[in-house]
Amino acid sequence: MSRPQTPEQPLDVQGDSSPHRRIEDSGEGTQNSHRMLGFSDALLSIIATVMILPVTHTEISPEQQFDKSIQKLLATRIAVYLMTFLIVTVAWAAHTRLFQVVGKIDDTLALLNLACMMTITLLPYTFSLMVTFPDVPLGIFLFCVCVITIGTVQALIVGYAFHFPHLLNPRIQRSAHRALCRQHSLRLVLRGPALCLVAAGFSLFFYPMSYLLMVTIIFLPHVSKATSWCKVRLMGRQEPPARSVEPFSFDLHAPLSKERVEAFSDGVYAIVATLLILDICEDNVPDPKDVQEQFHGSLVAALGAHGPQFLAYFGSFATVGLLWFAHHSLFLHVRKATQAMGLLNTLSLAFVGGLPLAYQQTSAFAQQPRDELERVRVSCAIIFFASIFQFAIWTAALLRQAETLQPSVQFGGQEHAFMFAKLALYPCASLLAFAATCLLSRFSTAIFHLMQISVPFAFLLLRLLMRLALAGLRALQGLRPAHPVPSQAEAEAQSRLLPASC
Amino acid sequence: MSRPQTPEQPLDVQGDSSPHRRIEDSGEGTQNSHRMLGFSDALLSIIATVMILPVTHTEISPEQQFDKSIQKLLATRIAVYLMTFLIVTVAWAAHTRLFQVVGKIDDTLALLNLACMMTITLLPYTFSLMVTFPDVPLGIFLFCVCVITIGTVQALIVGYAFHFPHLLNPRIQRSAHRALCRQHSLRLVLRGPALCLVAAGFSLFFYPMSYLLMVTIIFLPHVSKATSWCKVRLMGRQEPPARSVEPFSFDLHAPLSKERVEAFSDGVYAIVATLLILDICEDNVPDPKDVQEQFHGSLVAALGAHGPQFLAYFGSFATVGLLWFAHHSLFLHVRKATQAMGLLNTLSLAFVGGLPLAYQQTSAFAQQPRDELERVRVSCAIIFFASIFQFAIWTAALLRQAETLQPSVQFGGQEHAFMFAKLALYPCASLLAFAATCLLSRFSTAIFHLMQISVPFAFLLLRLLMRLALAGLRALQGLRPAHPVPSQAEAEAQSRLLPASC
Repeated sequence: MSRPQTPEQPLDVQGDSSPHRRIEDSGEGTQNSHRMLGFSDALLSIIATVMILPVTHTEISPEQQFDKSIQKLLATRIAVYLMTFLIVTVAWAAHTRLFQVVGKIDDTLALLNLACMMTITLLPYTFSLMVTFPDVPLGIFLFCVCVITIGTVQALIVGYAFHFPHLLNPRIQRSAHRALCRQHSLRLVLRGPALCLVAAGFSLFFYPMSYLLMVTIIFLPHVSKATSWCKVRLMGRQEPPARSVEPFSFDLHAPLSKERVEAFSDGVYAIVATLLILDICEDNVPDPKDVQEQFHGSLVAALGAHGPQFLAYFGSFATVGLLWFAHHSLFLHVRKATQAMGLLNTLSLAFVGGLPLAYQQTSAFAQQPRDELERVRVSCAIIFFASIFQFAIWTAALLRQAETLQPSVQFGGQEHAFMFAKLALYPCASLLAFAATCLLSRFSTAIFHLMQISVPFAFLLLRLLMRLALAGLRALQGLRPAHPVPSQAEAEAQSRLLPASC
Repeated sequence: MSRPQTPEQPLDVQGDSSPHRRIEDSGEGTQNSHRMLGFSDALLSIIATVMILPVTHTEISPEQQFDKSIQKLLATRIAVYLMTFLIVTVAWAAHTRLFQVVGKIDDTLALLNLACMMTITLLPYTFSLMVTFPDVPLGIFLFCVCVITIGTVQALIVGYAFHFPHLLNPRIQRSAHRALCRQHSLRLVLRGPALCLVAAGFSLFFYPMSYLLMVTIIFLPHVSKATSWCKVRLMGRQEPPARSVEPFSFDLHAPLSKERVEAFSDGVYAIVATLLILDICEDNVPDPKDVQEQFHGSLVAALGAHGPQFLAYFGSFATVGLLWFAHHSLFLHVRKATQAMGLLNTLSLAFVGGLPLAYQQTSAFAQQPRDELERVRVSCAIIFFASIFQFAIWTAALLRQAETLQPSVQFGGQEHAFMFAKLALYPCASLLAFAATCLLSRFSTAIFHLMQISVPFAFLLLRLLMRLALAGLRALQGLRPAHPVPSQAEAEAQSRLLPASC
């Protein structure tokens, strides 16, 4: 390292990362990591989502039928999208944990972080190679090289931060077990790359083994979480031994930083919402010659021919925007994001990333009414899964509500029923639309558009509807003399909600 | 509005927007706007930058010459990119100001904001229409409709926030001139749309007038700033009358929120850094048939053929990353972003957005050595302008340093010389590379790659180099007995910098 040691003056050691604190920290080359993490989140979320573009850009000329080769190409690209999304979220989670250990940054760490980001952006390419040439081990070899590079850079970051302890999280900085903590962090950072080194070796003579190892690396955090959970269940409740030694560790099971989960999700929603306008601008501007020949110079008529695409765009934007809105409302009331919530959030985001596919690509196959029906159903399914996983985040949070949620949305809280309704709106609406297309398959498009138009208004009217429903429920309960006694919490929730509706 | 009035309990009225405060705010449907603003910033920065993709995707087949029609298509797309970038940054600035008045949000405001965002995403399409059909007034008409819609939604937001005053910025909330402030805000929000209404009218019978009005709207903030500046210069220093009445206003000349400038810039840098990997994944995965036929099944050889593209990718990512790094370092020391700094930042970002064009598209023309030279020169010029505008931000900040900068980087501060060097590195390097290509035009590519490889190391070694340079300067000054006395500030800066180099 070329950077001379900065004098170790007693820096402020609060673990606080609010933007206000940065102002005081900026002297002496040490900086709060807030903005660098924001930039990394934006970069990683875009990388995770942008691979849906090659899927939606798959060109199918009208005369070309939807044959095997197109199917294969499309499947290949969807596989690349999903693998990229998965590996980037794993890398993002590792990055989050790393910067829970490293609290402050300086120029060297900022540059090392950029090197790490650049290597991560190469991962989608290695997947493309793997999927296009499944029998050639070069793709998996390059993947391993990338992961080893990332691990090396991250190990450098850990080593550097422990060498200049004022960069560490204050809790580790003050800890007596700093050396142990360093060892633990390095082990966790280098675990994946070590496996990859083995995989790279195997790729030279027996590559199926490499693929097996790659899958292990991707699912490692979840596998080890599941293993420890099973262990606790089988052998009785016992803390893992490492935890009792360290007051704060680079622990894979610790809750994720809520702010970074929000920032990453915002990036995904924002890029998904804007991808479609790109296609609209590129493909739906009519050609001046066509306008002259086919529409007798009338631009309005030419634009009218693209009407369905615009409708699809409005629908897509409204859906993505409202899913973001539900996510935003939910995380407003979340205090801490557990690992299970992080996993569910990733799954929800993966489906959100698939929305442009549902709207744009499948519309290219819509030559027969049957295709249109399929397209509507695929869209409904994607919306359903994206929103049901959001609902699952809430359910997972409710299971440990004292720890994860604000009191107002905990079971029996003031806003509990309202949050429930907000998160249940899209799963119900998409399921209803799906069921309706089964019964009235001839009107599938109309049903779908009706759903898209009605849901935003439903969100606006939700508070009113909620109160009407609760009032109705109460009136019903009042009519029955021997109604079952509601639990204390439920009764409180209702009584708190009702006065405001008058 | 369907939302029943919430009881106006005495909410916390601090103007503070740190993420920590959100926790306490989340009850009663009122929320801190922090995350919504982050999402809007991400969305707007992506929209502003993503229109470079149609430019880089312009397909030029090898046999097709770089003829008039391609030139026209390319010019069209570049015009759309620049216009989009400009109008989106204007919309972003207006959005920033609006949410300096509105301090907190609730569900209705969040949904209104989404509607506003959706309308903004349609602006690039209206530009595409305008540029493709310059003689048809439909494009400009649709543009006006969009701006009027945005204005209406923003007026609704202002009206709603003033109707429920606990949503306002606490300083306005407590102000005695709230009604006046409301009028002023509404006037500013509706000024552009009112002009657009006139422009829409003109578009029906005399559309050149509409274009003129559109240009006025885009440059309105800067024009009014320049006018008031001239007025102050000509008539002597006098405050505009509106300011003396209102303690805090939706003022177009007030400094922008520094955090939002950072968030918007991060979004632009992040999307630019990731756009190229998309092209690499889409275009540079070799076709299995080609590998079999042309490279005798050797994937490594096939990838070797794409070598220059990979090199270009590394160079592009490193350049964007390091420009972000310089921006990050600069804004770490900025306390307040004035309007001039905001404008310079926008110009810098517009060139950063052009980087993928320099790397990718111009490489498609590189059939002759002369084209290669041009490509390298265009790249150098784009890097130069992107970095020189960053340098200009710093210069603008130095002019009002007491107000805008942290003490440590003010003239004579501890970090002043280092910041100077950091920001001067890219302008110097790109200028040097440009000059070198003029002298040694045969080695232009080698020179360019050399620059790209050396700059990251220069950043790493900058502190060391700075100290060596200052030590050398001091040694030289020591040799000359009658050296000019350095200003107090300079001497202090040097003496503060030097001890650490020992």
